[in-house]
Amino acid sequence: MSDYDLQERLAGARAVGTTDESRDHLPKESLATEPRPLSRVITWHDEADVVIVGYGGAGVCAALEAALAGADVLALERAGGGGGTTAMSTAHIYMGGGTRVQKAVGLEDTTEDMFRFIMASADDPDEEKVRLFCDGSVGHFDWLVEQGVPFKDSIYPDRTPEQPNDDCLIWSGNEKAHPFRELARPSARGHKVQNQAEGGPILFRILSENAERAGVRVQCDTRVLNLIVRGEDGRICGVVVRQDQEERFIRARRGVILCAGGFVMNREMLRNHVPSVLEENVSPVGNMYDDGAGIRMGLSARGTAIHMDEYFVTVVWYPPSSLTKGILVNEYGQRFINEDSYHGRCAEHAKRQGRAYLIADNEIFGYPESGLELLATENSIEDLESALKLPPQTLQNSVAVYNENAMRGEDPVFRKHADWIKPLNAPPYAAIECSYGIAPYLTFTLGGLKTRASGEVVTEDGQDVPGLFAAGRNACGIPRSSWGYCSGTSVADATFFGRITGRKAAANESWE
Amino acid sequence: MSDYDLQERLAGARAVGTTDESRDHLPKESLATEPRPLSRVITWHDEADVVIVGYGGAGVCAALEAALAGADVLALERAGGGGGTTAMSTAHIYMGGGTRVQKAVGLEDTTEDMFRFIMASADDPDEEKVRLFCDGSVGHFDWLVEQGVPFKDSIYPDRTPEQPNDDCLIWSGNEKAHPFRELARPSARGHKVQNQAEGGPILFRILSENAERAGVRVQCDTRVLNLIVRGEDGRICGVVVRQDQEERFIRARRGVILCAGGFVMNREMLRNHVPSVLEENVSPVGNMYDDGAGIRMGLSARGTAIHMDEYFVTVVWYPPSSLTKGILVNEYGQRFINEDSYHGRCAEHAKRQGRAYLIADNEIFGYPESGLELLATENSIEDLESALKLPPQTLQNSVAVYNENAMRGEDPVFRKHADWIKPLNAPPYAAIECSYGIAPYLTFTLGGLKTRASGEVVTEDGQDVPGLFAAGRNACGIPRSSWGYCSGTSVADATFFGRITGRKAAANESWE
Repeated sequence: MSDYDLQERLAGARAVGTTDESRDHLPKESLATEPRPLSRVITWHDEADVVIVGYGGAGVCAALEAALAGADVLALERAGGGGGTTAMSTAHIYMGGGTRVQKAVGLEDTTEDMFRFIMASADDPDEEKVRLFCDGSVGHFDWLVEQGVPFKDSIYPDRTPEQPNDDCLIWSGNEKAHPFRELARPSARGHKVQNQAEGGPILFRILSENAERAGVRVQCDTRVLNLIVRGEDGRICGVVVRQDQEERFIRARRGVILCAGGFVMNREMLRNHVPSVLEENVSPVGNMYDDGAGIRMGLSARGTAIHMDEYFVTVVWYPPSSLTKGILVNEYGQRFINEDSYHGRCAEHAKRQGRAYLIADNEIFGYPESGLELLATENSIEDLESALKLPPQTLQNSVAVYNENAMRGEDPVFRKHADWIKPLNAPPYAAIECSYGIAPYLTFTLGGLKTRASGEVVTEDGQDVPGLFAAGRNACGIPRSSWGYCSGTSVADATFFGRITGRKAAANESWE
Repeated sequence: MSDYDLQERLAGARAVGTTDESRDHLPKESLATEPRPLSRVITWHDEADVVIVGYGGAGVCAALEAALAGADVLALERAGGGGGTTAMSTAHIYMGGGTRVQKAVGLEDTTEDMFRFIMASADDPDEEKVRLFCDGSVGHFDWLVEQGVPFKDSIYPDRTPEQPNDDCLIWSGNEKAHPFRELARPSARGHKVQNQAEGGPILFRILSENAERAGVRVQCDTRVLNLIVRGEDGRICGVVVRQDQEERFIRARRGVILCAGGFVMNREMLRNHVPSVLEENVSPVGNMYDDGAGIRMGLSARGTAIHMDEYFVTVVWYPPSSLTKGILVNEYGQRFINEDSYHGRCAEHAKRQGRAYLIADNEIFGYPESGLELLATENSIEDLESALKLPPQTLQNSVAVYNENAMRGEDPVFRKHADWIKPLNAPPYAAIECSYGIAPYLTFTLGGLKTRASGEVVTEDGQDVPGLFAAGRNACGIPRSSWGYCSGTSVADATFFGRITGRKAAANESWE
């Protein structure tokens, strides 16, 4: 069995609590996030300069940088150990502009190309954040290396969602696909932490060891219940936690950083903001504590949330990469996307259709490694059209137009790159089920608290909530659209802005 | 000139402040919505049992019902006079289940059909609200009649966004279009208040006269700045207003009802929640005070907002209704919607494409009354395809398939109703520009505060914010998707839930 096995990963994700049942059995009290007034705090059980709520990828980077800046840091984690969703991930980290690995494998990249590409990947990119993220990207890579995070000087060249080995670079997004390739010079920017399997556990282990070495105190099995707020000015002064079955009060002298993840495990929040992902066969990706508690605490403390409707979605329909030479069609027999787009972009466009099928011929066919269902095989496109119950002549016309152009190596309709074009003329023909709600899709949320690029949570009025910061998916960050998402932007965003936010909180004035 | 003249209405809308310039020049202080603590209130300048923030369709109904229930009611309006966006509208009111007018014109309808239809019109309908709305719909009609609102016992049978006369009923949504017609027996439910031109001004005049007769006090040129909150329990106790250049404090003994409209005039909120409507040639529909102030006040007082990404959008591409016999195609020459769908549904689907064109032949052609641009006329579909720079063979194939089926009076692909099917075979052929971002689109917002069906604003935790209510587009109500929107659901929702909320607030316990 290969290292890359989606079925196993899905099963693993479910095992840590992502089934509907486990989501519905989250204790009701988990929803009570109202802040407590400072005036009611009688005793402080513990204190620190900077208190970190949630110890995953964003939390560990925030903690480490705050500690390196001289702050006394206390990190609080609900689970029995840190890591969060970052430690469950492959740990692709989206970095570019000329990293050591990019140079070693002979890939050219510039900060400006990276900037233009990311700016084109959302309806409402936060230009200040994107600018900071791109300008600091090579530096972020170097910092990770300094921390001891291993990256091999190699690239995995095939089109696949995840390299099945320890190669570093991968084309992890839409860089080479129309229309992005015309907007910015493409480069591979997904950097996998060196490991045969997922890199997430290694990344987190290294960073957390460094954080503890720098003096960060970590308390697990510690649930943060509420923020503590000073009545006069709304300043956040600490948190209420539950430890060993009792409530304790922890003072945060300089600031509280919310790093407690997205809300894909919270059905009520999904209903309110992203109802379309509550479909059959759409599995949430995350850890069981991605219930939006951090976002809700921030909202209760006058923060505002933005783009709460945005999500990532995918159906992993390749490898084999040869299937990219097939065409994706909807229930009207129409193509709807250039099939060389990133799987998540294809999935979002498939989701907008009623049904979606991948059509392949015998030359390019291979069973999708993810186990997607083979719906039909027929000796002619006409018969395939019937088998799929598509309206007569529709699929035939789509294939005829595609083939006629493909003979010349062109796709003037959807502009798939010439590398992936060949006429579909080698029977038998196959149809693979890619429909949203039927094929196995994966999803997680992208919306969160509105923050400054430096991490301060802001109110609807555009004011800072004094003493409150957020990073990772408690904030709305770099990735903010399903149609433009790239692998690696989540972990890159969490670690990059986690670091910035940690430094900012450490430098914040104490409220005492 | 006919009563129905979109250009004039657009010009009118702009005149009351909907240009980008006027939106950007809203005073900055309009964003400061933080609640003030009760403990800081030294003097009350005025008081009432129920204070209404915003005196449009929802506000007047809330005020009237609260007053009829015996409450002392004070309505506060920022503009020089009441009416809000309701008074700018046609005043289609979506009602069904067997109203007097439906019966008089021989239309059958049931509460269950109305319920099924509305439930199918959003990803996340609020079942409790929809149930109440449908069960109470005939009663709401009768109540309006009792108030003196005139409805003629007639139906305007043509397919048009707005009847050009004083007929009452109109098919105002997707009831007869696939897939809705298979889900619920269709009926016309858009009831226009009897008037040759728009019914909004009449509706508001009648209701506000009744409200004042019932004792409602109305103060215009009165801007509500903040809610006043009791520190201990978050109870809303009143509002801070600006009148005559000074701040005054108004006590609300039983409750405050937020009825201050949507946020389509607030660019910052649109960027945060609905960035895709910030496109060229997309005009906001509303009055200049639809800047989300009520929603922001509610959020600041611990309310939560849902479906903030949802919006209405349309491009008015008919009448003439004969154009419905044409086909809408995208930049790939593909059809994408059954063209007998409501104009807003067609527009949402057109918005999801890159470009969109209406293709007509000489038999059905007429210049769109809204002034949409005629892009090309050619003597063959092939030439039209070239003129539109569509990929070769694509439009030709779409028309060929459409025509072949149309010969049999069928549309097995998109299931347009047989009434609107004829082969496109009478040259010359025409293409009309319907592209989002190019053709003139209209939009307004549908997201808002989460409320109970009875009007209480609830927190993210699902608790009531004591003393705070919302109705109209300060709340997220019945209409909550662009693809399922029907004309008349906004005014119906505002007036229906305005009434319920007014009664609820009047019965609320006083905080004193």
